[in-house]
Amino acid sequence: MSDTRPTDRETACFEAGIKFGSLYHQFAGTPVSPGSADSLATAMEAAIENQPHCDEVVVDVHEDRLREELADGPADYTELTGKFVDVDIYIDYEGIFVHAHMRMTEGYPLMDVVEVRE
Amino acid sequence: MSDTRPTDRETACFEAGIKFGSLYHQFAGTPVSPGSADSLATAMEAAIENQPHCDEVVVDVHEDRLREELADGPADYTELTGKFVDVDIYIDYEGIFVHAHMRMTEGYPLMDVVEVRE
Amino acid sequence: MSDTRPTDRETACFEAGIKFGSLYHQFAGTPVSPGSADSLATAMEAAIENQPHCDEVVVDVHEDRLREELADGPADYTELTGKFVDVDIYIDYEGIFVHAHMRMTEGYPLMDVVEVRE
Amino acid sequence: MSDTRPTDRETACFEAGIKFGSLYHQFAGTPVSPGSADSLATAMEAAIENQPHCDEVVVDVHEDRLREELADGPADYTELTGKFVDVDIYIDYEGIFVHAHMRMTEGYPLMDVVEVRE
Repeated sequence: MSDTRPTDRETACFEAGIKFGSLYHQFAGTPVSPGSADSLATAMEAAIENQPHCDEVVVDVHEDRLREELADGPADYTELTGKFVDVDIYIDYEGIFVHAHMRMTEGYPLMDVVEVRE
Repeated sequence: MSDTRPTDRETACFEAGIKFGSLYHQFAGTPVSPGSADSLATAMEAAIENQPHCDEVVVDVHEDRLREELADGPADYTELTGKFVDVDIYIDYEGIFVHAHMRMTEGYPLMDVVEVRE
Repeated sequence: MSDTRPTDRETACFEAGIKFGSLYHQFAGTPVSPGSADSLATAMEAAIENQPHCDEVVVDVHEDRLREELADGPADYTELTGKFVDVDIYIDYEGIFVHAHMRMTEGYPLMDVVEVRE
Repeated sequence: MSDTRPTDRETACFEAGIKFGSLYHQFAGTPVSPGSADSLATAMEAAIENQPHCDEVVVDVHEDRLREELADGPADYTELTGKFVDVDIYIDYEGIFVHAHMRMTEGYPLMDVVEVRE
Protein backbone atom coordinates (compact mmCIF):
# COMPACT_ATOMS: atom_id res chain seq x y z
CA MET A 1 0.00 0.00 0.00
CA SER A 2 1.45 3.32 -0.99
CA ASP A 3 1.44 6.12 1.51
CA THR A 4 -0.80 9.09 0.69
CA ARG A 5 1.41 11.57 2.53
CA PRO A 6 3.96 13.32 0.30
CA THR A 7 7.62 12.36 0.74
CA ASP A 8 10.24 15.08 1.09
CA ARG A 9 11.21 14.49 -2.56
CA GLU A 10 7.58 15.00 -3.59
CA THR A 11 7.22 18.14 -1.50
CA ALA A 12 10.46 19.47 -2.98
CA CYS A 13 9.02 18.94 -6.47
CA PHE A 14 5.77 20.65 -5.42
CA GLU A 15 7.82 23.63 -4.23
CA ALA A 16 9.67 23.73 -7.57
CA GLY A 17 6.35 23.81 -9.40
CA ILE A 18 5.08 26.70 -7.29
CA LYS A 19 8.13 28.77 -8.22
CA PHE A 20 7.62 28.13 -11.96
CA GLY A 21 3.93 28.97 -11.95
CA SER A 22 4.63 32.08 -9.87
CA LEU A 23 7.43 33.32 -12.08
CA TYR A 24 5.54 32.75 -15.31
CA HIS A 25 2.20 34.23 -14.34
CA GLN A 26 3.64 37.15 -12.39
CA PHE A 27 5.76 38.38 -15.27
CA ALA A 28 4.02 37.18 -18.46
CA GLY A 29 2.65 40.22 -20.26
CA THR A 30 5.36 42.60 -19.03
CA PRO A 31 6.37 45.12 -21.71
CA VAL A 32 9.88 44.09 -22.80
CA SER A 33 12.47 45.16 -25.37
CA PRO A 34 16.10 44.26 -26.01
CA GLY A 35 17.05 47.26 -23.85
CA SER A 36 14.96 46.25 -20.84
CA ALA A 37 15.50 42.49 -21.03
CA ASP A 38 18.40 42.41 -18.59
CA SER A 39 16.73 44.40 -15.83
CA LEU A 40 13.61 42.25 -16.15
CA ALA A 41 15.60 39.00 -15.94
CA THR A 42 17.43 40.28 -12.84
CA ALA A 43 14.18 41.30 -11.12
CA MET A 44 12.52 37.97 -11.95
CA GLU A 45 15.43 36.08 -10.40
CA ALA A 46 15.53 38.20 -7.24
CA ALA A 47 11.74 38.16 -6.79
CA ILE A 48 11.32 34.39 -6.98
CA GLU A 49 14.46 33.72 -4.91
CA ASN A 50 12.53 35.35 -2.04
CA GLN A 51 10.16 32.39 -1.96
CA PRO A 52 10.76 29.60 0.59
CA HIS A 53 13.21 26.78 -0.24
CA CYS A 54 14.29 28.57 -3.42
CA ASP A 55 18.04 28.31 -3.72
CA GLU A 56 18.62 29.94 -7.09
CA VAL A 57 16.72 31.18 -10.13
CA VAL A 58 18.42 31.77 -13.48
CA VAL A 59 16.41 33.67 -16.10
CA ASP A 60 17.69 34.23 -19.60
CA VAL A 61 15.61 36.67 -21.64
CA HIS A 62 16.76 36.13 -25.22
CA GLU A 63 17.46 39.52 -26.75
CA ASP A 64 18.00 37.91 -30.15
CA ARG A 65 14.50 36.43 -30.13
CA LEU A 66 13.09 39.79 -29.09
CA ARG A 67 14.94 41.51 -31.95
CA GLU A 68 13.65 38.93 -34.41
CA GLU A 69 10.07 39.38 -33.20
CA LEU A 70 10.30 43.17 -33.40
CA ALA A 71 11.95 43.20 -36.82
CA ASP A 72 8.64 42.28 -38.44
CA GLY A 73 6.47 45.02 -36.96
CA PRO A 74 6.22 48.73 -36.23
CA ALA A 75 6.60 48.46 -32.43
CA ASP A 76 9.87 48.54 -30.52
CA TYR A 77 8.68 46.40 -27.61
CA THR A 78 6.50 43.38 -27.08
CA GLU A 79 4.99 41.42 -24.16
CA LEU A 80 6.95 38.81 -22.26
CA THR A 81 5.88 35.25 -23.07
CA GLY A 82 7.58 31.90 -22.68
CA LYS A 83 9.07 32.02 -26.15
CA PHE A 84 11.51 34.71 -25.07
CA VAL A 85 12.82 33.13 -21.85
CA ASP A 86 14.68 30.13 -20.53
CA VAL A 87 14.39 29.54 -16.80
CA ASP A 88 16.29 27.25 -14.42
CA ILE A 89 15.16 26.92 -10.82
CA TYR A 90 17.07 25.18 -8.00
CA ILE A 91 15.16 24.11 -4.88
CA ASP A 92 16.61 22.96 -1.56
CA TYR A 93 13.93 21.42 0.64
CA GLU A 94 15.06 19.52 3.74
CA GLY A 95 18.24 18.38 2.05
CA ILE A 96 16.50 17.40 -1.20
CA PHE A 97 17.78 19.27 -4.24
CA VAL A 98 15.52 19.76 -7.26
CA HIS A 99 16.57 21.29 -10.55
CA ALA A 100 13.71 22.18 -12.89
CA HIS A 101 13.71 24.20 -16.06
CA MET A 102 11.50 25.81 -18.68
CA ARG A 103 12.44 25.45 -22.35
CA MET A 104 10.59 26.01 -25.61
CA THR A 105 9.64 22.58 -26.95
CA GLU A 106 7.67 22.30 -30.20
CA GLY A 107 6.39 25.83 -29.78
CA TYR A 108 5.42 25.54 -26.13
CA PRO A 109 7.23 26.68 -22.97
CA LEU A 110 7.46 23.33 -21.17
CA MET A 111 8.35 23.11 -17.48
CA ASP A 112 10.10 19.93 -16.38
CA VAL A 113 11.93 18.48 -13.41
CA VAL A 114 15.49 17.85 -14.61
CA GLU A 115 16.73 16.03 -11.53
CA VAL A 116 16.02 15.29 -7.88
CA ARG A 117 19.00 14.61 -5.59
CA GLU A 118 19.34 13.86 -1.91
CA MET B 1 21.67 5.07 -4.57
CA SER B 2 18.61 7.17 -5.27
CA ASP B 3 17.63 7.89 -8.83
CA THR B 4 17.86 11.50 -9.96
CA ARG B 5 15.00 11.21 -12.45
CA PRO B 6 11.62 12.26 -11.04
CA THR B 7 9.07 9.50 -10.38
CA ASP B 8 5.52 9.90 -11.64
CA ARG B 9 4.45 10.84 -8.11
CA GLU B 10 7.12 13.55 -8.03
CA THR B 11 6.13 14.87 -11.44
CA ALA B 12 2.48 14.91 -10.35
CA CYS B 13 3.45 17.02 -7.32
CA PHE B 14 5.50 19.35 -9.55
CA GLU B 15 2.42 19.79 -11.76
CA ALA B 16 0.28 20.59 -8.69
CA GLY B 17 2.77 23.24 -7.66
CA ILE B 18 2.72 24.86 -11.10
CA LYS B 19 -1.06 25.24 -10.90
CA PHE B 20 -0.87 26.91 -7.45
CA GLY B 21 1.81 29.37 -8.44
CA SER B 22 -0.05 30.15 -11.67
CA LEU B 23 -3.38 30.71 -9.99
CA TYR B 24 -1.98 32.88 -7.24
CA HIS B 25 0.25 35.13 -9.31
CA GLN B 26 -2.17 35.47 -12.21
CA PHE B 27 -5.03 36.69 -10.05
CA ALA B 28 -3.42 38.34 -6.98
CA GLY B 29 -4.08 42.06 -7.20
CA THR B 30 -7.40 41.73 -9.03
CA PRO B 31 -9.94 44.33 -7.84
CA VAL B 32 -12.56 42.37 -5.88
CA SER B 33 -15.69 43.10 -3.84
CA PRO B 34 -18.40 40.92 -2.30
CA GLY B 35 -20.42 41.45 -5.49
CA SER B 36 -17.66 40.31 -7.86
CA ALA B 37 -16.24 37.49 -5.73
CA ASP B 38 -18.30 34.73 -7.34
CA SER B 39 -17.48 35.59 -10.94
CA LEU B 40 -13.79 35.84 -10.06
CA ALA B 41 -13.79 32.45 -8.31
CA THR B 42 -15.52 30.85 -11.31
CA ALA B 43 -13.03 32.36 -13.78
CA MET B 44 -10.05 31.30 -11.66
CA GLU B 45 -11.30 27.71 -11.58
CA ALA B 46 -12.01 27.55 -15.33
CA ALA B 47 -8.72 29.23 -16.26
CA ILE B 48 -6.47 26.91 -14.28
CA GLU B 49 -8.47 23.80 -15.24
CA ASN B 50 -7.23 24.50 -18.79
CA GLN B 51 -3.71 23.59 -17.72
CA PRO B 52 -2.39 20.06 -18.42
CA HIS B 53 -3.16 17.26 -15.94
CA CYS B 54 -5.47 19.55 -13.94
CA ASP B 55 -8.56 17.61 -13.01
CA GLU B 56 -10.39 20.14 -10.87
CA VAL B 57 -9.86 23.49 -9.18
CA VAL B 58 -12.11 24.73 -6.37
CA VAL B 59 -11.75 28.38 -5.38
CA ASP B 60 -13.67 29.88 -2.48
CA VAL B 61 -13.46 33.68 -2.29
CA HIS B 62 -14.70 34.51 1.21
CA GLU B 63 -17.24 37.30 0.92
CA ASP B 64 -17.40 37.60 4.71
CA ARG B 65 -13.67 38.33 4.91
CA LEU B 66 -14.03 40.88 2.11
CA ARG B 67 -16.91 42.58 3.98
CA GLU B 68 -14.88 42.66 7.17
CA GLU B 69 -11.88 44.19 5.37
CA LEU B 70 -14.03 46.82 3.67
CA ALA B 71 -15.97 47.73 6.83
CA ASP B 72 -12.93 49.60 8.17
CA GLY B 73 -12.25 51.86 5.19
CA PRO B 74 -13.83 54.23 2.67
CA ALA B 75 -13.45 51.93 -0.36
CA ASP B 76 -15.99 49.36 -1.54
CA TYR B 77 -13.44 47.02 -3.13
CA THR B 78 -9.97 45.74 -2.40
CA GLU B 79 -7.27 43.67 -4.13
CA LEU B 80 -7.30 39.90 -4.13
CA THR B 81 -4.71 38.36 -1.82
CA GLY B 82 -4.39 34.96 -0.21
CA LYS B 83 -6.22 36.02 2.92
CA PHE B 84 -9.50 36.11 1.01
CA VAL B 85 -9.32 32.73 -0.75
CA ASP B 86 -9.18 29.01 -0.09
CA VAL B 87 -8.07 26.88 -3.03
CA ASP B 88 -8.15 23.12 -3.62
CA ILE B 89 -6.48 21.66 -6.70
CA TYR B 90 -6.78 18.06 -7.92
CA ILE B 91 -4.17 16.71 -10.35
CA ASP B 92 -4.31 13.51 -12.38
CA TYR B 93 -0.92 12.68 -13.89
CA GLU B 94 -0.45 9.23 -15.41
CA GLY B 95 -2.81 7.66 -12.90
CA ILE B 96 -1.33 9.49 -9.92
CA PHE B 97 -3.81 11.69 -8.08
CA VAL B 98 -2.60 14.68 -6.09
CA HIS B 99 -4.77 16.88 -3.88
CA ALA B 100 -3.15 20.12 -2.78
CA HIS B 101 -4.65 23.14 -1.08
CA MET B 102 -3.99 26.69 0.01
CA ARG B 103 -5.15 27.80 3.46
CA MET B 104 -4.36 30.74 5.69
CA THR B 105 -2.00 29.52 8.41
CA GLU B 106 -0.69 31.95 11.03
CA GLY B 107 -1.36 34.86 8.72
CA TYR B 108 0.17 33.32 5.60
CA PRO B 109 -1.47 31.62 2.61
CA LEU B 110 0.31 28.26 2.79
CA MET B 111 0.22 25.82 -0.12
CA ASP B 112 0.54 22.13 0.79
CA VAL B 113 0.17 18.71 -0.73
CA VAL B 114 -2.71 17.05 1.13
CA GLU B 115 -2.38 13.60 -0.40
CA VAL B 116 -0.85 11.62 -3.23
CA ARG B 117 -2.68 8.47 -4.39
CA GLU B 118 -2.03 5.91 -7.12
CA MET C 1 -1.37 80.64 -20.81
CA SER C 2 -2.72 77.18 -20.38
CA ASP C 3 -3.45 75.91 -16.91
CA THR C 4 -1.28 73.08 -15.66
CA ARG C 5 -4.03 71.61 -13.48
CA PRO C 6 -6.05 68.87 -15.19
CA THR C 7 -9.62 69.68 -16.19
CA ASP C 8 -12.42 67.28 -15.27
CA ARG C 9 -12.39 66.02 -18.88
CA GLU C 10 -8.67 65.32 -18.60
CA THR C 11 -9.05 63.55 -15.27
CA ALA C 12 -11.90 61.47 -16.72
CA CYS C 13 -9.57 60.40 -19.57
CA PHE C 14 -6.81 59.59 -17.04
CA GLU C 15 -9.30 57.40 -15.16
CA ALA C 16 -10.24 55.63 -18.40
CA GLY C 17 -6.59 54.91 -19.09
CA ILE C 18 -6.06 53.44 -15.60
CA LYS C 19 -8.90 50.99 -16.20
CA PHE C 20 -7.43 49.83 -19.54
CA GLY C 21 -3.95 49.33 -18.20
CA SER C 22 -5.36 47.52 -15.16
CA LEU C 23 -7.57 45.20 -17.16
CA TYR C 24 -4.90 44.32 -19.67
CA HIS C 25 -2.01 43.68 -17.32
CA GLN C 26 -4.08 41.92 -14.66
CA PHE C 27 -5.49 39.36 -17.07
CA ALA C 28 -2.93 39.04 -19.89
CA GLY C 29 -1.35 35.60 -19.63
CA THR C 30 -4.43 33.89 -18.15
CA PRO C 31 -4.89 30.36 -19.51
CA VAL C 32 -7.93 30.53 -21.80
CA SER C 33 -9.85 28.21 -24.11
CA PRO C 34 -13.14 28.48 -26.00
CA GLY C 35 -14.80 26.79 -23.02
CA SER C 36 -13.46 29.22 -20.40
CA ALA C 37 -13.70 32.42 -22.47
CA ASP C 38 -17.12 33.45 -21.17
CA SER C 39 -16.31 33.09 -17.48
CA LEU C 40 -13.10 35.04 -17.97
CA ALA C 41 -14.86 37.87 -19.81
CA THR C 42 -17.48 38.09 -17.05
CA ALA C 43 -14.85 38.20 -14.31
CA MET C 44 -12.82 40.85 -16.15
CA GLU C 45 -15.89 43.07 -16.46
CA ALA C 46 -16.93 42.67 -12.81
CA ALA C 47 -13.37 43.15 -11.50
CA ILE C 48 -12.68 46.41 -13.32
CA GLU C 49 -16.18 47.79 -12.66
CA ASN C 50 -15.16 47.81 -8.99
CA GLN C 51 -12.70 50.61 -9.72
CA PRO C 52 -13.72 54.22 -9.01
CA HIS C 53 -15.69 56.15 -11.65
CA CYS C 54 -16.06 53.03 -13.78
CA ASP C 55 -19.60 52.87 -15.11
CA GLU C 56 -19.41 49.82 -17.34
CA VAL C 57 -16.89 47.43 -18.86
CA VAL C 58 -17.72 45.22 -21.84
CA VAL C 59 -15.24 42.46 -22.67
CA ASP C 60 -15.63 40.22 -25.69
CA VAL C 61 -13.28 37.26 -25.73
CA HIS C 62 -13.45 35.97 -29.31
CA GLU C 63 -13.96 32.22 -29.19
CA ASP C 64 -13.52 31.98 -32.97
CA ARG C 65 -10.07 33.54 -32.77
CA LEU C 66 -9.17 31.16 -29.93
CA ARG C 67 -10.35 28.18 -32.02
CA GLU C 68 -8.32 29.39 -35.00
CA GLU C 69 -5.20 29.78 -32.84
CA LEU C 70 -5.61 26.34 -31.29
CA ALA C 71 -6.33 24.58 -34.61
CA ASP C 72 -2.67 24.87 -35.57
CA GLY C 73 -1.11 23.30 -32.48
CA PRO C 74 -1.27 20.39 -30.07
CA ALA C 75 -2.60 22.37 -27.07
CA ASP C 76 -6.26 22.99 -26.24
CA TYR C 77 -5.70 26.30 -24.47
CA THR C 78 -3.54 29.38 -24.90
CA GLU C 79 -2.70 32.55 -22.96
CA LEU C 80 -4.89 35.63 -23.08
CA THR C 81 -3.43 38.44 -25.16
CA GLY C 82 -4.96 41.46 -26.84
CA LYS C 83 -5.52 39.64 -30.11
CA PHE C 84 -8.33 37.63 -28.54
CA VAL C 85 -10.29 40.44 -26.87
CA ASP C 86 -12.25 43.58 -27.64
CA VAL C 87 -12.85 45.87 -24.67
CA ASP C 88 -15.14 48.88 -24.22
CA ILE C 89 -14.94 50.94 -21.03
CA TYR C 90 -17.36 53.66 -19.95
CA ILE C 91 -16.25 56.20 -17.33
CA ASP C 92 -18.41 58.67 -15.44
CA TYR C 93 -16.27 61.24 -13.62
CA GLU C 94 -18.02 64.30 -12.17
CA GLY C 95 -20.59 64.31 -14.96
CA ILE C 96 -18.04 63.75 -17.71
CA PHE C 97 -18.60 60.59 -19.72
CA VAL C 98 -15.71 58.90 -21.48
CA HIS C 99 -15.99 55.93 -23.81
CA ALA C 100 -12.70 54.24 -24.65
CA HIS C 101 -12.02 50.96 -26.38
CA MET C 102 -9.34 48.45 -27.28
CA ARG C 103 -9.29 46.99 -30.79
CA MET C 104 -6.74 45.10 -32.83
CA THR C 105 -5.25 47.54 -35.33
CA GLU C 106 -2.53 46.38 -37.72
CA GLY C 107 -1.63 43.57 -35.39
CA TYR C 108 -1.59 45.61 -32.18
CA PRO C 109 -4.20 45.96 -29.45
CA LEU C 110 -4.66 49.73 -29.55
CA MET C 111 -6.42 51.59 -26.75
CA ASP C 112 -8.20 54.81 -27.75
CA VAL C 113 -10.60 57.36 -26.37
CA VAL C 114 -13.70 57.12 -28.59
CA GLU C 115 -15.57 60.08 -27.15
CA VAL C 116 -15.74 62.50 -24.24
CA ARG C 117 -19.14 63.98 -23.38
CA GLU C 118 -20.36 66.35 -20.69
CA MET D 1 -21.24 72.74 -27.70
CA SER D 2 -18.32 70.72 -26.48
CA ASP D 3 -16.54 68.46 -28.90
CA THR D 4 -16.76 64.74 -28.22
CA ARG D 5 -13.36 64.02 -29.75
CA PRO D 6 -10.50 63.97 -27.22
CA THR D 7 -8.04 66.86 -27.31
CA ASP D 8 -4.31 66.14 -27.29
CA ARG D 9 -4.23 67.06 -23.58
CA GLU D 10 -7.00 64.54 -22.92
CA THR D 11 -5.28 61.82 -24.93
CA ALA D 12 -2.03 62.54 -23.08
CA CYS D 13 -3.87 62.04 -19.77
CA PHE D 14 -5.43 58.82 -21.09
CA GLU D 15 -1.93 57.59 -21.96
CA ALA D 16 -0.70 58.46 -18.46
CA GLY D 17 -3.55 56.45 -16.97
CA ILE D 18 -2.71 53.41 -19.11
CA LYS D 19 0.85 53.42 -17.80
CA PHE D 20 -0.30 53.57 -14.16
CA GLY D 21 -2.81 50.76 -14.51
CA SER D 22 -0.24 48.68 -16.42
CA LEU D 23 2.50 49.18 -13.88
CA TYR D 24 0.32 48.47 -10.89
CA HIS D 25 -1.45 45.37 -12.14
CA GLN D 26 1.61 43.87 -13.83
CA PHE D 27 3.73 44.00 -10.71
CA ALA D 28 1.30 43.88 -7.74
CA GLY D 29 1.75 40.54 -6.03
CA THR D 30 5.45 40.19 -6.88
CA PRO D 31 7.43 38.62 -4.02
CA VAL D 32 9.57 41.45 -2.62
CA SER D 33 12.03 41.96 0.23
CA PRO D 34 14.41 44.78 1.21
CA GLY D 35 17.12 42.96 -0.75
CA SER D 36 15.15 42.66 -3.98
CA ALA D 37 13.41 46.04 -3.85
CA ASP D 38 15.98 47.85 -5.99
CA SER D 39 16.03 45.34 -8.84
CA LEU D 40 12.24 45.30 -8.91
CA ALA D 41 12.02 49.11 -9.02
CA THR D 42 14.55 49.21 -11.88
CA ALA D 43 12.67 46.57 -13.87
CA MET D 44 9.32 48.32 -13.34
CA GLU D 45 10.76 51.58 -14.65
CA ALA D 46 12.39 50.01 -17.71
CA ALA D 47 9.33 47.88 -18.54
CA ILE D 48 6.81 50.71 -18.51
CA GLU D 49 9.18 53.13 -20.29
CA ASN D 50 8.85 50.77 -23.26
CA GLN D 51 5.23 51.84 -23.69
CA PRO D 52 4.37 54.52 -26.26
CA HIS D 53 4.67 58.21 -25.29
CA CYS D 54 6.25 57.28 -21.96
CA ASP D 55 9.12 59.64 -21.27
CA GLU D 56 10.17 58.52 -17.81
CA VAL D 57 9.02 56.34 -14.94
CA VAL D 58 10.40 56.70 -11.42
CA VAL D 59 9.57 53.93 -8.96
CA ASP D 60 10.59 54.09 -5.32
CA VAL D 61 10.09 50.84 -3.43
CA HIS D 62 10.37 51.83 0.23
CA GLU D 63 12.71 49.39 1.93
CA ASP D 64 11.89 50.91 5.33
CA ARG D 65 8.20 50.14 4.89
CA LEU D 66 9.09 46.59 3.81
CA ARG D 67 11.27 46.16 6.90
CA GLU D 68 8.50 47.46 9.15
CA GLU D 69 5.97 45.06 7.59
CA LEU D 70 8.32 42.10 7.92
CA ALA D 71 9.33 42.89 11.52
CA ASP D 72 5.94 41.69 12.76
CA GLY D 73 5.89 38.26 11.13
CA PRO D 74 7.91 35.10 10.51
CA ALA D 75 8.46 35.67 6.76
CA ASP D 76 11.35 37.54 5.20
CA TYR D 77 9.44 38.68 2.12
CA THR D 78 5.99 39.95 1.26
CA GLU D 79 3.94 40.78 -1.85
CA LEU D 80 4.22 44.10 -3.61
CA THR D 81 1.23 46.38 -3.04
CA GLY D 82 0.74 50.11 -3.36
CA LYS D 83 1.66 50.77 0.24
CA PHE D 84 5.30 49.99 -0.49
CA VAL D 85 5.78 52.13 -3.62
CA ASP D 86 5.72 55.70 -4.83
CA VAL D 87 5.52 56.12 -8.60
CA ASP D 88 6.00 59.16 -10.85
CA ILE D 89 5.25 58.90 -14.57
CA TYR D 90 6.09 61.50 -17.21
CA ILE D 91 4.25 61.39 -20.56
CA ASP D 92 5.11 63.25 -23.75
CA TYR D 93 2.27 63.05 -26.25
CA GLU D 94 2.42 65.33 -29.28
CA GLY D 95 4.17 68.06 -27.33
CA ILE D 96 1.88 67.75 -24.30
CA PHE D 97 3.67 66.86 -21.08
CA VAL D 98 1.81 65.08 -18.30
CA HIS D 99 3.21 64.32 -14.88
CA ALA D 100 1.15 61.89 -12.80
CA HIS D 101 1.99 60.12 -9.58
CA MET D 102 0.84 57.47 -7.14
CA ARG D 103 1.02 58.17 -3.42
CA MET D 104 -0.49 56.57 -0.35
CA THR D 105 -3.36 58.78 0.77
CA GLU D 106 -5.46 57.79 3.80
CA GLY D 107 -4.42 54.18 3.37
CA TYR D 108 -5.01 53.98 -0.36
CA PRO D 109 -2.58 54.17 -3.28
CA LEU D 110 -4.12 57.11 -5.16
CA MET D 111 -3.14 57.90 -8.74
CA ASP D 112 -3.43 61.55 -9.77
CA VAL D 113 -2.47 63.88 -12.58
CA VAL D 114 -0.06 66.39 -11.06
CA GLU D 115 0.23 68.69 -14.05
CA VAL D 116 -0.41 69.01 -17.78
CA ARG D 117 1.86 71.33 -19.77
CA GLU D 118 2.11 72.26 -23.42
